[in-house]
Amino acid sequence: MRRKICLIITSRGNYAKMSSIIKAMANHPELEPQIVVGGGALLSKYGAIADAMRQQGIRIDRMVHFLVEGETPVTMAKSAGVAVSEFSTAFDNLKPDVVVVLADRFECLPAAMTAAYMNIPVAHIEGGEVSGSIDESIRHAITKLAHVHFPATSDAAKRIARMGEEPETIFPVGATSLDALCQLDLTDISPMKELQLTTGVGEVVDLSGDYLLAIQHPVTTEYAQNLNNIRQTVAAIEELRMPTIWIWPNMDAGSDGISKGIREFRENKRPDYIHFFKGLAIEHYGPLLNNAACIVGNSSSGIRESAFLGVPAVNIGIRQGGRERGHNVIDVGYDRAAIVDAVRRQVVHGRYEPDLIYGDGKAGSRVVEIVKDFSFTIQKRITY
Amino acid sequence: MRRKICLIITSRGNYAKMSSIIKAMANHPELEPQIVVGGGALLSKYGAIADAMRQQGIRIDRMVHFLVEGETPVTMAKSAGVAVSEFSTAFDNLKPDVVVVLADRFECLPAAMTAAYMNIPVAHIEGGEVSGSIDESIRHAITKLAHVHFPATSDAAKRIARMGEEPETIFPVGATSLDALCQLDLTDISPMKELQLTTGVGEVVDLSGDYLLAIQHPVTTEYAQNLNNIRQTVAAIEELRMPTIWIWPNMDAGSDGISKGIREFRENKRPDYIHFFKGLAIEHYGPLLNNAACIVGNSSSGIRESAFLGVPAVNIGIRQGGRERGHNVIDVGYDRAAIVDAVRRQVVHGRYEPDLIYGDGKAGSRVVEIVKDFSFTIQKRITY
Amino acid sequence: MRRKICLIITSRGNYAKMSSIIKAMANHPELEPQIVVGGGALLSKYGAIADAMRQQGIRIDRMVHFLVEGETPVTMAKSAGVAVSEFSTAFDNLKPDVVVVLADRFECLPAAMTAAYMNIPVAHIEGGEVSGSIDESIRHAITKLAHVHFPATSDAAKRIARMGEEPETIFPVGATSLDALCQLDLTDISPMKELQLTTGVGEVVDLSGDYLLAIQHPVTTEYAQNLNNIRQTVAAIEELRMPTIWIWPNMDAGSDGISKGIREFRENKRPDYIHFFKGLAIEHYGPLLNNAACIVGNSSSGIRESAFLGVPAVNIGIRQGGRERGHNVIDVGYDRAAIVDAVRRQVVHGRYEPDLIYGDGKAGSRVVEIVKDFSFTIQKRITY
Amino acid sequence: MRRKICLIITSRGNYAKMSSIIKAMANHPELEPQIVVGGGALLSKYGAIADAMRQQGIRIDRMVHFLVEGETPVTMAKSAGVAVSEFSTAFDNLKPDVVVVLADRFECLPAAMTAAYMNIPVAHIEGGEVSGSIDESIRHAITKLAHVHFPATSDAAKRIARMGEEPETIFPVGATSLDALCQLDLTDISPMKELQLTTGVGEVVDLSGDYLLAIQHPVTTEYAQNLNNIRQTVAAIEELRMPTIWIWPNMDAGSDGISKGIREFRENKRPDYIHFFKGLAIEHYGPLLNNAACIVGNSSSGIRESAFLGVPAVNIGIRQGGRERGHNVIDVGYDRAAIVDAVRRQVVHGRYEPDLIYGDGKAGSRVVEIVKDFSFTIQKRITY
Repeated sequence: MRRKICLIITSRGNYAKMSSIIKAMANHPELEPQIVVGGGALLSKYGAIADAMRQQGIRIDRMVHFLVEGETPVTMAKSAGVAVSEFSTAFDNLKPDVVVVLADRFECLPAAMTAAYMNIPVAHIEGGEVSGSIDESIRHAITKLAHVHFPATSDAAKRIARMGEEPETIFPVGATSLDALCQLDLTDISPMKELQLTTGVGEVVDLSGDYLLAIQHPVTTEYAQNLNNIRQTVAAIEELRMPTIWIWPNMDAGSDGISKGIREFRENKRPDYIHFFKGLAIEHYGPLLNNAACIVGNSSSGIRESAFLGVPAVNIGIRQGGRERGHNVIDVGYDRAAIVDAVRRQVVHGRYEPDLIYGDGKAGSRVVEIVKDFSFTIQKRITY
Repeated sequence: MRRKICLIITSRGNYAKMSSIIKAMANHPELEPQIVVGGGALLSKYGAIADAMRQQGIRIDRMVHFLVEGETPVTMAKSAGVAVSEFSTAFDNLKPDVVVVLADRFECLPAAMTAAYMNIPVAHIEGGEVSGSIDESIRHAITKLAHVHFPATSDAAKRIARMGEEPETIFPVGATSLDALCQLDLTDISPMKELQLTTGVGEVVDLSGDYLLAIQHPVTTEYAQNLNNIRQTVAAIEELRMPTIWIWPNMDAGSDGISKGIREFRENKRPDYIHFFKGLAIEHYGPLLNNAACIVGNSSSGIRESAFLGVPAVNIGIRQGGRERGHNVIDVGYDRAAIVDAVRRQVVHGRYEPDLIYGDGKAGSRVVEIVKDFSFTIQKRITY
Repeated sequence: MRRKICLIITSRGNYAKMSSIIKAMANHPELEPQIVVGGGALLSKYGAIADAMRQQGIRIDRMVHFLVEGETPVTMAKSAGVAVSEFSTAFDNLKPDVVVVLADRFECLPAAMTAAYMNIPVAHIEGGEVSGSIDESIRHAITKLAHVHFPATSDAAKRIARMGEEPETIFPVGATSLDALCQLDLTDISPMKELQLTTGVGEVVDLSGDYLLAIQHPVTTEYAQNLNNIRQTVAAIEELRMPTIWIWPNMDAGSDGISKGIREFRENKRPDYIHFFKGLAIEHYGPLLNNAACIVGNSSSGIRESAFLGVPAVNIGIRQGGRERGHNVIDVGYDRAAIVDAVRRQVVHGRYEPDLIYGDGKAGSRVVEIVKDFSFTIQKRITY
Repeated sequence: MRRKICLIITSRGNYAKMSSIIKAMANHPELEPQIVVGGGALLSKYGAIADAMRQQGIRIDRMVHFLVEGETPVTMAKSAGVAVSEFSTAFDNLKPDVVVVLADRFECLPAAMTAAYMNIPVAHIEGGEVSGSIDESIRHAITKLAHVHFPATSDAAKRIARMGEEPETIFPVGATSLDALCQLDLTDISPMKELQLTTGVGEVVDLSGDYLLAIQHPVTTEYAQNLNNIRQTVAAIEELRMPTIWIWPNMDAGSDGISKGIREFRENKRPDYIHFFKGLAIEHYGPLLNNAACIVGNSSSGIRESAFLGVPAVNIGIRQGGRERGHNVIDVGYDRAAIVDAVRRQVVHGRYEPDLIYGDGKAGSRVVEIVKDFSFTIQKRITY
């Protein structure tokens, strides 16, 4: 009887982080993967990840729709409720032996809660880190529901232990998002030209020289300020006037404000030096990030993947606050002038030495080796 | 503008624990209480708490139905999903400034999650304790979502701090459930005779001499074992053959098994020395507990209220495992002989000295004084 | 490619009505049955139909929990909402070619609506009849959503056509509930003795002479009157004092009132001439009905199955109002004296001639033969 | 005690149709309006109707979010499920005496079903008409759940009676959507210039000469064909090359296909003769329609409002199939050449004589006068 491992994938980022685990499970004689895809990963406006997965030959076991339209705090909560209902039906039918949830998105706590309530062991990837937004609370709440932990860093592992989790359930394996990077030729950005011609909006931007990569997600705990905050970034990009690839924000509460700020800018200023994408597959994103003169915004990839690759990063605001970082990061507030100044300094500085704090690109196979015969104790007990 | 404090009440036990807070808020010039009643507290089979509250002059602001029938792990999860949907609508309409949630019931995590996602500060009562069942995970997950903490004991307060919560958000106030006890004449059990005549099932049991109080709730993490476990208790009670008041279990996953074991016993053995109640209001429960020769089962009142009152308790199984206890408790496993033996020893021993580890009966007013002008920081951050 | 026929079963009565269809589909080379079981059919308190089905070798494709506790109009509505969510997920995963829904229960309209919204053809069994309660509205609303109709009677078929449905989509096939009866030895009630000993509550009642069969369901449109109404029936049964088998009510809004009235009676009067069952499988119910001196209450089996078998029936109140009936029925109001009088007259009268208005017991195979290659038009259009 | 009339508003079109009813209820001594706004009416991408209503001084009693993202048949069904849950909570708290639902949108059947299940009388506006899409089934299913009917036309009234509704519950009052038109100065389209400058996308189009108004909604029952169908319309508009105002489609299943077709066109051809709006308030829409050389697409306003105003209309495909129409309509299939030809003939023809088949602009006050003291019979019964 093979152990059934159920992976929850709800966004493009989720998929990038799960893909090395999926690969490590493929054809594994002792494991039966169960893939549950839901939320934004099903929507064409977020790039139809489910379709892309099927094209790569991945069987999807259940599709769960739970995003209630609105992108406000109340619809985020309501989406979480629908997610619990959907996950419970999926788990009831799939009967997984383990449910694997990622990090700190708003739908991950519902997934972990549902599994825990159904006495299904929960494996948590990327717990123990520190950040801002509601993600900070979500991540630690999942830790308290999870039965085995796969933090990315040793600091995160220590934090999980300090929260009262049993040391023998904590395995610092590195960040799974780095695994996919290691499989790619990161030097070749030539496909980006064709991609700009066929998808996204805006002119085709020249990436042969210095260029920026901009990604700014909403901060749910600053819900009403997101519009003002993005306006600072937008003004900075306008002032910098460098070739820029801009990735659309995720669907968290407040994304409306971020989108509005970007759209205003696009429609009023019609910047011909920016190309906008809704999202990019890791095969495109990896080389794009690796060759950028600087990544600017508040994406975690400015902290993790950029540390690993040595890409200069300007991190804006509180979303990544508290997360461990390498030397490649300059932190700034929501302030046009500060952003401009930091980006200019990074462009001048150029690449940094790679830093392995977030792992070595082999996390996925470690997760699979441990999960495959881990002896779970369903009844948790805090260690102190 | 008065601060709107929203209290979540979903069971009779919840109401007992919230009532001193409700009293302390009544007519408070700076506070506007908002009472949300849901789940079991609305159902006649659990005693129609909402009706009782209204009879006591308490205005209920919202009623939320979320219990999906089944009392299995999957319906518990599904109920949690409906609860999130319902709480989000209630909070969206009531716009509370603070949401107060209790302890560790399965619907409390949905309430806390919903409020946190909606950027509403969460006050958590009775966090930081240790126990068994899924309650253990729920309680600590709520801690990681809450913005202010009101643990019952100083040990619990220390545990919350060790989990990474800011010390200035932690206030050990004692257990609110003791507050209500202090308001009552605990010596007079004469109303119990009339109550046995008019409610519950079974013969009227004589309470003038030594009698037992039995309460055994399901343990969700031992879902499939609940029937076997209760059979041990039932066999012990049969062997003891003392006058016994038995309170029906709560609605957690597994309550079906507990109920079945009790019903089998009742229908096969027709014990004339037991009277069964679905639940009791605190005015009846307080004196009943205070005068019992021994409380037996796995209710938290065998640990807390009994410590405070000095009532001998026999605690069965893992449900209260890890929770601090006074000298009044003998712990036993799911084992007829051990239960019989422990009860006999407790009856011989008689009352214990009161123990104030769980507070002094003034918790509710402390909670209200702190909540009324606490300066909340919505963006949480672990302290290490 | 076999046509996938999805049957929705949510109660014991549903299963009795679907079972001849299930049989006719078994091993059919052109059909793939998909069985979705939900609601009351999953609950042990309604007899755990799903378990019984599995014991009979029937594969259940999806289990859907949707009953929100309360049995009030608001929880009936809320249950309907959860049902829609659950059915949509089930249909999305099963991809049926046809969904078959029954009659007029509150969860059948959600099932039909969900399928229609998903462009899945809906087959409706037992439409076109007239009755009371919310069932009347539900039944006709389903007709307006359905793509093929299998009414039990020719009158019902005419009514469906008058409502504007295409004549070529209407097939009067008889009531499927009679099919199962025809497979049974209806003369042998000896197993009822053993059954009384092992299940249900109350004394073992002697069925060798004249006995009554009592079933009274709630009427949702008389929600607040159900308790008073059942009290009249209970008082009549008490006055009649004949051996009686009483079947517990279904879970519609108001069942609480019915249950309470029965329980009051049982606990206050402890009638030793009644045995109560939660429900009976058709193998037991068929002979029991066939040999009864009279069936009393408001079950549709007093109208349909009793007409077919020639069993005297006393029908109480509006629930079956408007439904075609044979000569075997005496209608009375909620009135003790009238009930007593009518039952006495029926007992004196004895059996009636069988009446085939509700079919000949071959409905199920007709349904299957038609559904298997019916050419559905998804876009409906009223005929006038 | 004033009668509480609860109006359900879920889209801009809904609001236009309800506004004369809202006006007629304002300050009515016998009535208490309750406004429930939900779904698309809350979303900024559909024009934030709720905000517009508040600016006009209308108090919103409840906001209900229920749109599950996806715009596929399965998410339409899932949205309907969430809608039922939300409406049941709203009605449970508001305790309306009557619920007023409109026409045939997918969320209107859930609203009617919820009210009917809760024994709240349902008033249905614009029943009895014939059309295509799932709307056809929804409309008639609502009729079978409703307790009073306000069809727009006498034909519709006859159809409702033929479906078995009591004649004394049917009141042909005209279409409420015409009421709002009558309050406006329909000759002045000058504000459209400013509006084009500040909202929508595309060049500012000159409306001083002949111009087209294009609106094409998805047809749910042709779910997979919507993209191909819209491409024909888009090609026709391209060939016609007249100044055109294009209104974005509604959120029904299939809107993704429609949107995609429009976006393809806009991005590939960058037509400078079209301005696109997400939606328009009736004050803008009325004059715009009234002065158009031709309205083209499948909006019901091409049938109703255009008949009343005498505006030439080209109706494409099955969505309005079967609906009564005046002389102003030319029907065509999904065919570029046919569309081009029909539009050219209409432009040449010019205005038609007004036709009052859809009413005289006084429907709203009639509805209010009838609803205010209508004697409802909760228990429905088909008339034959």
